[in-house]
Amino acid sequence: MAAPSRLDSVIALARHRGFVFQAGEIYGGSRSAWDYGPLGVELKENIKKQWWRFMVQSRDDVVGLDSSVILPRKVWEASGHVEVFSDPLVECTSCHKRFRADHLIEEFEEKKGRAPENGLDDLPCPNCGNRHIWTEPRAFSGLLKTFLGPVDDEAGMHYLRPETAQGIFVNFANVLQASRQKPPFGIGQIGKSFRNEITPGNFIFRTREFEQMEMEFFVEPGTDETWQEYWMEQRMSWYTGLGIKPENLRFFEHPAEKLSHYSKRTVDIEYRFGFPGSEFGELEGIANRTDFDLKTHAEASGKDLSYFDQTKNERWIPYVIEPAAGLTRSLMAFLVDAFDEEEVPNAKGGVDKRTVLRLDPRLAPVKVAILPLSRNEALSPMARELAASLRESWNVDFDDAGAIGRRYRRQDEIGTPFCVTVDFDSLEDQAVTVRDRDTMKQERVPLAGLYAFLAERLRGA
Amino acid sequence: MAAPSRLDSVIALARHRGFVFQAGEIYGGSRSAWDYGPLGVELKENIKKQWWRFMVQSRDDVVGLDSSVILPRKVWEASGHVEVFSDPLVECTSCHKRFRADHLIEEFEEKKGRAPENGLDDLPCPNCGNRHIWTEPRAFSGLLKTFLGPVDDEAGMHYLRPETAQGIFVNFANVLQASRQKPPFGIGQIGKSFRNEITPGNFIFRTREFEQMEMEFFVEPGTDETWQEYWMEQRMSWYTGLGIKPENLRFFEHPAEKLSHYSKRTVDIEYRFGFPGSEFGELEGIANRTDFDLKTHAEASGKDLSYFDQTKNERWIPYVIEPAAGLTRSLMAFLVDAFDEEEVPNAKGGVDKRTVLRLDPRLAPVKVAILPLSRNEALSPMARELAASLRESWNVDFDDAGAIGRRYRRQDEIGTPFCVTVDFDSLEDQAVTVRDRDTMKQERVPLAGLYAFLAERLRGA
Repeated sequence: MAAPSRLDSVIALARHRGFVFQAGEIYGGSRSAWDYGPLGVELKENIKKQWWRFMVQSRDDVVGLDSSVILPRKVWEASGHVEVFSDPLVECTSCHKRFRADHLIEEFEEKKGRAPENGLDDLPCPNCGNRHIWTEPRAFSGLLKTFLGPVDDEAGMHYLRPETAQGIFVNFANVLQASRQKPPFGIGQIGKSFRNEITPGNFIFRTREFEQMEMEFFVEPGTDETWQEYWMEQRMSWYTGLGIKPENLRFFEHPAEKLSHYSKRTVDIEYRFGFPGSEFGELEGIANRTDFDLKTHAEASGKDLSYFDQTKNERWIPYVIEPAAGLTRSLMAFLVDAFDEEEVPNAKGGVDKRTVLRLDPRLAPVKVAILPLSRNEALSPMARELAASLRESWNVDFDDAGAIGRRYRRQDEIGTPFCVTVDFDSLEDQAVTVRDRDTMKQERVPLAGLYAFLAERLRGA
Repeated sequence: MAAPSRLDSVIALARHRGFVFQAGEIYGGSRSAWDYGPLGVELKENIKKQWWRFMVQSRDDVVGLDSSVILPRKVWEASGHVEVFSDPLVECTSCHKRFRADHLIEEFEEKKGRAPENGLDDLPCPNCGNRHIWTEPRAFSGLLKTFLGPVDDEAGMHYLRPETAQGIFVNFANVLQASRQKPPFGIGQIGKSFRNEITPGNFIFRTREFEQMEMEFFVEPGTDETWQEYWMEQRMSWYTGLGIKPENLRFFEHPAEKLSHYSKRTVDIEYRFGFPGSEFGELEGIANRTDFDLKTHAEASGKDLSYFDQTKNERWIPYVIEPAAGLTRSLMAFLVDAFDEEEVPNAKGGVDKRTVLRLDPRLAPVKVAILPLSRNEALSPMARELAASLRESWNVDFDDAGAIGRRYRRQDEIGTPFCVTVDFDSLEDQAVTVRDRDTMKQERVPLAGLYAFLAERLRGA
């Protein structure tokens, strides 16, 4: 058996330490969705907070929005999703698994360097291995539907959104009126989307239920190409600014013939996840959606979605640059990139293996761990009081179980930047020992100066 | 025509100023869901932040979770929702509107003080007014279904969750294993839920898509009644601590015969919304769910969901106390409670009407507005620089359009606690004028001390 890959180790850690659980695990689980445990939800919220701050709050030209998941069918007809958001699917008549025909052919081409001679007929089923068994391709909708109202009929049929973007477009005029913004300006949104993926997989990378962080930036036609370059650079700097190693990121330019129906140009930011078969995976796409969406919604709804440019005395429909990131994908990238194993000297003159998540302190789920040296009538109350006071500012862990070395390792594994040890000297000198996760250096800090010491190092968290 | 009620005024303000928009408005809108505009999304996030801090981060006995919206049917069969979460519905054969039979009868009883003599037959249709027109009652499921996978069949049928709670119960064992917690302890979650409400209405009060803030607190059987009292008190103090007037809140004890299928006792916290017909509306329910959920999931899944109590050397299934709040309902309550109209003297010796949202500064969507006295080559850069520096800490508005009095009013209307005016003296004395939203008092503050001045007053925001 092969040694576990780095990716396998990260997934094992994430599941074991309660970052991510399989959805509905006690009922056999599902590959469609994942649940985020106590540490995962904090990490996820921290990523959202950093995105919102970078993309919305710190800028005077972007405002936020939170629109509904369920939208009437008309919206998705106008957006082109009902027509275009479907894939040709073939079924294996032997094991009845379904696959995207174009994916089967692409995989063959990548492996063999040539097209299959007799098209699909040449290709074995990836599940059961049989050949000459494919049905004709049939359309398969990527949209999830549901029914509102008392009867499951056409009138009540709605779709769960496959992207948060359309909620922004249909609110464009509302926001323009209420917010005193004018192009160039953006509307950002974080929220869940749902896609009926045929083959969910790669842990939290491809799921049917997922979270997005999208921003639609409305610009004057003609300035769109420059703005796309601007946002490509901004978005790349967001990932590296939060600690992702630049050598694990790259831009991927979508070939013209594979662009989405609304796009003039799309460039992905990809991360080196190390998936078997394809090393890189998409984190986000920065698309030039042109005026496609506003134009089609204006036509379908009969509302005017143009902007009157007072300085030019003319009316135009803005072009849209869209940086659309996958929240759960970026969470996975932050975990993989932060994961580190190193050998450190132990007390017996040998070496121990240390697993450490080198997460940016702003993203770390727990900021500070309070570790009383032992369970003791004098130490415990002092340590608990300290934990309670720091909890007013940060997410703080308290752990008094087991050897101190093991407790350090436990905090290293979940990426806690600072461990604070309360020991017997603390009762005398009113000081504590602060240990740095990355350097493992320890420093004696007076209790009176502890908050300032930590606040300085946790700025922006 | 009657004068608009206080509630009408709040709704008008919320829509006009971009707190809340009708979902899919350009396509005719929907009563099922609402979208949150630039101010609404900030207010909503601030409420979530305060709930999470109060219920999860500031406590050492509660951890967080974020579970999926879509869960397999088995979960909802075990929870009892498939069977119980349905209502008897009758249809008017004249106008084809559907109503809950029990609601029609209750309304009659409330109005007339007696039961209708011939049951439903006596009752006119609330929509068209015709009588003797009702069909037999038929079950109507409150669950929204969707289909995962390529075909819309039974195997792929899933439900959108009608409450976030079940995601917590099915992860109970996972969290217990990963988090070093033991009863009494809680798991908190914020997220969207979906219910196929027959009559959505009252603005954002009753919608088919909504957000919940729920916490399941697991306790030893026998201590459940005490813990329920504890959480009732805690939750009430959360609302009043964030500024809701105590006289607008009350407890409502569910009568025994109307308890949900899982509940031993449920007490609601209600707010005086001032709806026509029924003044108070539910903000949250604090329920004693007993061991119903863990027991039924253990039976249905075959997994052991009990807790081994080492100190007593015995195994038991925890009882659950659940404070379950509606996020969007509490947003509406905070808006209604903060809404105030007062008369203030104007410059001409008369009085002006001032509308002001007296939101707690921690909830206010915009914390500080920077208002340069006029558009000017010297003032504008200074004001913009100030806004940019404060944006690192808070959500900051910048407004240089129109008379200063009108700009103050605009900020009052959206609840901005502090307006900072940059005037011509500022260029000389390096100081600004800070105006307090509630008292309208103005104070000169040196630029060098402005951050500290605001930070002191915006603590916890």
